[in-house]
Amino acid sequence: MTSQFGSARQVEIYSRGGPGAVPVSARRLERLAGRAMTPAARAYVFGAAGGEATLRANRGVFDHWRIVPRMLRDVSQRDLRVELFGATLPAPVLLAPVGVQELVHAEGDLPASRAAAARGAPFVLSTVSSRSIEEIAAVGGPRWFQLYWGKNPELTVSLLQRAAAAGYSALVVTLDTPMLGWRERDLDRGDLPFLRGAGLANFFSDPVFCSALGCPPEENRPAAVALWSRVFSNPALSWKDLAWLRAQTKLPIVLKGIQHPDDARQALACGADGIIVSNHGGRQVDGAIASLDALPGIAAAVENRVPVLFDSGVRRGADAFKALALGARAVLLGRLYLYGLALDGEAGVGAVLDNFIADFDLTLALSGYRAPGELTCIALAQR
Amino acid sequence: MTSQFGSARQVEIYSRGGPGAVPVSARRLERLAGRAMTPAARAYVFGAAGGEATLRANRGVFDHWRIVPRMLRDVSQRDLRVELFGATLPAPVLLAPVGVQELVHAEGDLPASRAAAARGAPFVLSTVSSRSIEEIAAVGGPRWFQLYWGKNPELTVSLLQRAAAAGYSALVVTLDTPMLGWRERDLDRGDLPFLRGAGLANFFSDPVFCSALGCPPEENRPAAVALWSRVFSNPALSWKDLAWLRAQTKLPIVLKGIQHPDDARQALACGADGIIVSNHGGRQVDGAIASLDALPGIAAAVENRVPVLFDSGVRRGADAFKALALGARAVLLGRLYLYGLALDGEAGVGAVLDNFIADFDLTLALSGYRAPGELTCIALAQR
Amino acid sequence: MTSQFGSARQVEIYSRGGPGAVPVSARRLERLAGRAMTPAARAYVFGAAGGEATLRANRGVFDHWRIVPRMLRDVSQRDLRVELFGATLPAPVLLAPVGVQELVHAEGDLPASRAAAARGAPFVLSTVSSRSIEEIAAVGGPRWFQLYWGKNPELTVSLLQRAAAAGYSALVVTLDTPMLGWRERDLDRGDLPFLRGAGLANFFSDPVFCSALGCPPEENRPAAVALWSRVFSNPALSWKDLAWLRAQTKLPIVLKGIQHPDDARQALACGADGIIVSNHGGRQVDGAIASLDALPGIAAAVENRVPVLFDSGVRRGADAFKALALGARAVLLGRLYLYGLALDGEAGVGAVLDNFIADFDLTLALSGYRAPGELTCIALAQR
Amino acid sequence: MTSQFGSARQVEIYSRGGPGAVPVSARRLERLAGRAMTPAARAYVFGAAGGEATLRANRGVFDHWRIVPRMLRDVSQRDLRVELFGATLPAPVLLAPVGVQELVHAEGDLPASRAAAARGAPFVLSTVSSRSIEEIAAVGGPRWFQLYWGKNPELTVSLLQRAAAAGYSALVVTLDTPMLGWRERDLDRGDLPFLRGAGLANFFSDPVFCSALGCPPEENRPAAVALWSRVFSNPALSWKDLAWLRAQTKLPIVLKGIQHPDDARQALACGADGIIVSNHGGRQVDGAIASLDALPGIAAAVENRVPVLFDSGVRRGADAFKALALGARAVLLGRLYLYGLALDGEAGVGAVLDNFIADFDLTLALSGYRAPGELTCIALAQR
Repeated sequence: MTSQFGSARQVEIYSRGGPGAVPVSARRLERLAGRAMTPAARAYVFGAAGGEATLRANRGVFDHWRIVPRMLRDVSQRDLRVELFGATLPAPVLLAPVGVQELVHAEGDLPASRAAAARGAPFVLSTVSSRSIEEIAAVGGPRWFQLYWGKNPELTVSLLQRAAAAGYSALVVTLDTPMLGWRERDLDRGDLPFLRGAGLANFFSDPVFCSALGCPPEENRPAAVALWSRVFSNPALSWKDLAWLRAQTKLPIVLKGIQHPDDARQALACGADGIIVSNHGGRQVDGAIASLDALPGIAAAVENRVPVLFDSGVRRGADAFKALALGARAVLLGRLYLYGLALDGEAGVGAVLDNFIADFDLTLALSGYRAPGELTCIALAQR
Repeated sequence: MTSQFGSARQVEIYSRGGPGAVPVSARRLERLAGRAMTPAARAYVFGAAGGEATLRANRGVFDHWRIVPRMLRDVSQRDLRVELFGATLPAPVLLAPVGVQELVHAEGDLPASRAAAARGAPFVLSTVSSRSIEEIAAVGGPRWFQLYWGKNPELTVSLLQRAAAAGYSALVVTLDTPMLGWRERDLDRGDLPFLRGAGLANFFSDPVFCSALGCPPEENRPAAVALWSRVFSNPALSWKDLAWLRAQTKLPIVLKGIQHPDDARQALACGADGIIVSNHGGRQVDGAIASLDALPGIAAAVENRVPVLFDSGVRRGADAFKALALGARAVLLGRLYLYGLALDGEAGVGAVLDNFIADFDLTLALSGYRAPGELTCIALAQR
Repeated sequence: MTSQFGSARQVEIYSRGGPGAVPVSARRLERLAGRAMTPAARAYVFGAAGGEATLRANRGVFDHWRIVPRMLRDVSQRDLRVELFGATLPAPVLLAPVGVQELVHAEGDLPASRAAAARGAPFVLSTVSSRSIEEIAAVGGPRWFQLYWGKNPELTVSLLQRAAAAGYSALVVTLDTPMLGWRERDLDRGDLPFLRGAGLANFFSDPVFCSALGCPPEENRPAAVALWSRVFSNPALSWKDLAWLRAQTKLPIVLKGIQHPDDARQALACGADGIIVSNHGGRQVDGAIASLDALPGIAAAVENRVPVLFDSGVRRGADAFKALALGARAVLLGRLYLYGLALDGEAGVGAVLDNFIADFDLTLALSGYRAPGELTCIALAQR
Repeated sequence: MTSQFGSARQVEIYSRGGPGAVPVSARRLERLAGRAMTPAARAYVFGAAGGEATLRANRGVFDHWRIVPRMLRDVSQRDLRVELFGATLPAPVLLAPVGVQELVHAEGDLPASRAAAARGAPFVLSTVSSRSIEEIAAVGGPRWFQLYWGKNPELTVSLLQRAAAAGYSALVVTLDTPMLGWRERDLDRGDLPFLRGAGLANFFSDPVFCSALGCPPEENRPAAVALWSRVFSNPALSWKDLAWLRAQTKLPIVLKGIQHPDDARQALACGADGIIVSNHGGRQVDGAIASLDALPGIAAAVENRVPVLFDSGVRRGADAFKALALGARAVLLGRLYLYGLALDGEAGVGAVLDNFIADFDLTLALSGYRAPGELTCIALAQR
């Protein structure tokens, strides 16, 4: 990746002479992707908790901040790279953990992880992925592992060891899901993909899980699903338990789901290596604070001691610009890349990533900046 | 009811494998219920005063507050119970007084009162109910009586004595209806259910009313209705009259319709045992302050000396969470349970209650709280 | 009119047993009236200046204020009467000057003036009315005359003398129309009713006008219209000219169109007897301040030295309540009564008035007030 | 042009007796123009960067300011003229630089420049116009030249010399386009007009360009387009380069695209003769501050030392009124005149200009002002 993403990608698109399989417009992308999905996939991917007020707020809040472009600053050379835990990302973009990708594509997490790998962007594999830790490792790109920290410590240790052995370079611990949110679209369909065994690849391939089950999962799928549902998450966890987790892995631990500055301070006190400000795309607590509204206070609390990442609602370059200006080191894309996946598999995810980065690169340059690290709240005005 | 409402109810719903008779989504619930009702029921239940600005404001105001979820707080054990007037409610939820339920269901108030009884939630019987005080008492659940305090003192005393004798444990006095509001939907249909004799069960079964009428109501329905319309409410009442009411009953007196902190102070000075912040679901004064906007000031004025309950606009768990965080002890559901009643009778009301409580339970847990009493405004951010 | 408007009118409507010719709901009223009008009438009545932003703002601004109802205040006896220039109005409601009513009804201003007369509400006759000063005087109700103060002083004097001779009791001088606003609906139809001779009854019947024309208007309508268009208004007028007007009439002079507190002060300094806060229903300056936003500052500037009336956007009882609470003595209804006129002539205007006053009466009572004079901004909360 | 634009134009329109080819209503104008355009033209003219949030914000922000009309100020004589760089404009309106007008009309920039010339309004010719500097000069009206300051200094000098030689009286340097924005409509069509050779008249007719190309552009259009795309803009430019530009021309230099007060101060320090507050109609940075939000701070920074012009979102007279009241000397119309061009060529642009100026004139007069220079923020209220 060079520093001319934006212009180069524009030329590439214009030279097509017609529309591509994956719309550039995020609105059209979302609409076409929705049509391309099965009802089950649509409900799972598009749905959020309750009345979906937080889903809407996550998007609406970006309009409360405006970029103030600066002129004549020589933006001919940009460098989008950012450092995270000793590695260099080509751009401040990661692929957020998204479970059950088999709902959207027959090959599950493979297409997206390949598209990410081809661009050097970290792929964060979900605990409830459709392909196992090892299968995604074989793709070969930069990869992080997301943990739903469940009730069985041995199983947790096993997952962590597998991730470390398979070359995952960071651990994302999702804190906001001690239980599954009240997702009305799924509930009204009477269908939770996991209960059909979807998204359980990491469990069915795990020796501790299989040993607890007492038989290969394929032989007793209902029992395997039932076991999963008993152990997958753990509402009893508290901050003091982090010490135990810290002891189980040498990977940097990134806490995902932080929405209050005091929790960010607590995370630092407990030795977290990074924080992801996120409300799980509005999928857990309906009525929760919009993710971008939570960011500035948390960034202030963290005082740059560890990287703060941003998740929930990012759809365009300007969103990333604003999140970075308000204190994030990088952003995670979730639903957005699923849309590309639904429309054109690996190429679709790739197109979404290329477009997103090109849009961000242009937004940066046209606003008078050359690198993500230059962005501060001075680049914004409030409305 | 255990402390795992949310998760248990989710499992129950997902295990259906398809949609239920009563949608989980409050929006779909409302839409389907509207279709299931007769035009007269729809106008009465959905309608509000004037241009229905307050009806809309009651809902919109919830978006002005956002929950700030807290992480890693061990929410495995929740206890939703709250104390009210010496009794323990399984969850901070009551069924608001709603008149003329025969519009929606042939059995009137029986299905809803049965569903409430099965869950231990107090059913607040309306003065203008379709079934009498005694019929609902026979259902056997916890029950409160709502009083439209009318012009005939003997009739009022009779209703109070019947309620006390029938085991009602609290008296809700609705203050906001000295006259009926300007309800355009009903007016444009030229149809007020009461004038057809609907919702007058407590009057037609009352010895004082029948004696004033001079004949059994069935023999002269027009005269009975006319008598009702003369006595049903009393715009001449003032605060000093509360002393008289206080002397007529030993039940705790809960004043419903309080919207100004000074009225809350007056209520305390007059010996009220509780307050319900309510604008009657927007059915009385169009343009009135949204109920949630009125709550914090009233809670501050009351200083926890008596319980403050909240009514008007509650449709989801997050709404209850916010009302409790702003000072309410419990919330009352009105239209919401009517929707369940319209779609599936007792089972429908039950489903609505179960879903509401499960949603509230999950919202509580996922936000880092274990009990209603832990909620304060610190759990919220303003937008 | 008694003090039980609200309840009595409700009983009257409910006893119909079906919908009336004139909907109670202001929204339905507007919709049906629009359908009942010719395109020319619809464009003229519904249209406003430019993009109609002020028309919308006039309505939207009412939502920025909320009524805070008070309980238990003995509202059994209300008195809606207000004093204006030595006369007593049955309720704080006047019929605003509206020109060219022949667009909406064959009898022009007669039906509305009759409906107003039957209720004792002042009818403000427009200079550009469809019936003459004398014809409306013959109806016999309380009446004010609205003046478009034009370029021919003799003609102005003639109109004032005719109004005084015909028993009009106040003079409303519209200041906001030194020229006609940029009304896109009319412009895009290429049709201004006046240029077809509509709404010129007061001119064609005036001896000064006819003498200036040199022949009876019927004999040379184009010349008559051309003469009218030269004299109808006068952009050269300034505050000092008010002394001349003051000298021409003994009637109280009410200045309509005041939108700035300094203009209100100037009006008092020039001896105005009253002020109407109005932006002409958004028909003159698109982008002008919403009328209700202008009211509090003007009321503060006037300090009760003369009555302040309110016009522009009033459609329901709650609107009047809010305007009175913010300093108005009474409100003027414009488009609203035209809707009734379009649907049912005199009876239609009557129904609109009866409904409006009943709605206001109920809003007053249910909020804890017994008379317009009790309303102050303490009755409201801002949102 | 006399001082009675508004009234005279009204009479002209009403006397048509029916709708004209170009709607007066800006909303209808936009709708009909969209239908009259080819898809390529529609995408180019209507489109903006990214999600078009700034395009919407540019319009929405006008609602945050309200005009407070003043009464009785003798507005019979208005003078709309403003001075700019020693010339007198008949009204504070210019035609903004808009490229590739051949998309909308076969004669490219000729119709609009003729309409502007007929009214004495400056036409700002775009660098990427469809007709050359000299062809537009031949039209004979007041004209400015807009420069996309590219990578080839000789070419820039050539363009400047041609403009000066052809009698252009000011140079507008667009700063906000060091690269082309991320325009999703064009991208999703895979079509950028320039890449088809459209809008390159000034390049193809330039001796320096042709010499660099080595052959007449018609002989190798692909090579010509490729050369253009390499030189058309220059992201490496910085403030210090302005000294070079200053030395190349005696024309007043007006910097377009300023959105931050510090950039305005820098512009003054670098000797700029004028500033255009603009975000390029939302076409460059999606999420950028609304142009009107940027204006007051920039006007304050400039302290009247040079003229500040306003661009982006102006559609009606009230918009111009507000921009002038917030510190602009004049406004530029962009998309608006293209709509007229699409519907009726030169006559269409003329109608749009006449309507706009008439609307502005009336807004001025009806608000109590007689000249653009009288407007200050005192004429407005904030909402």
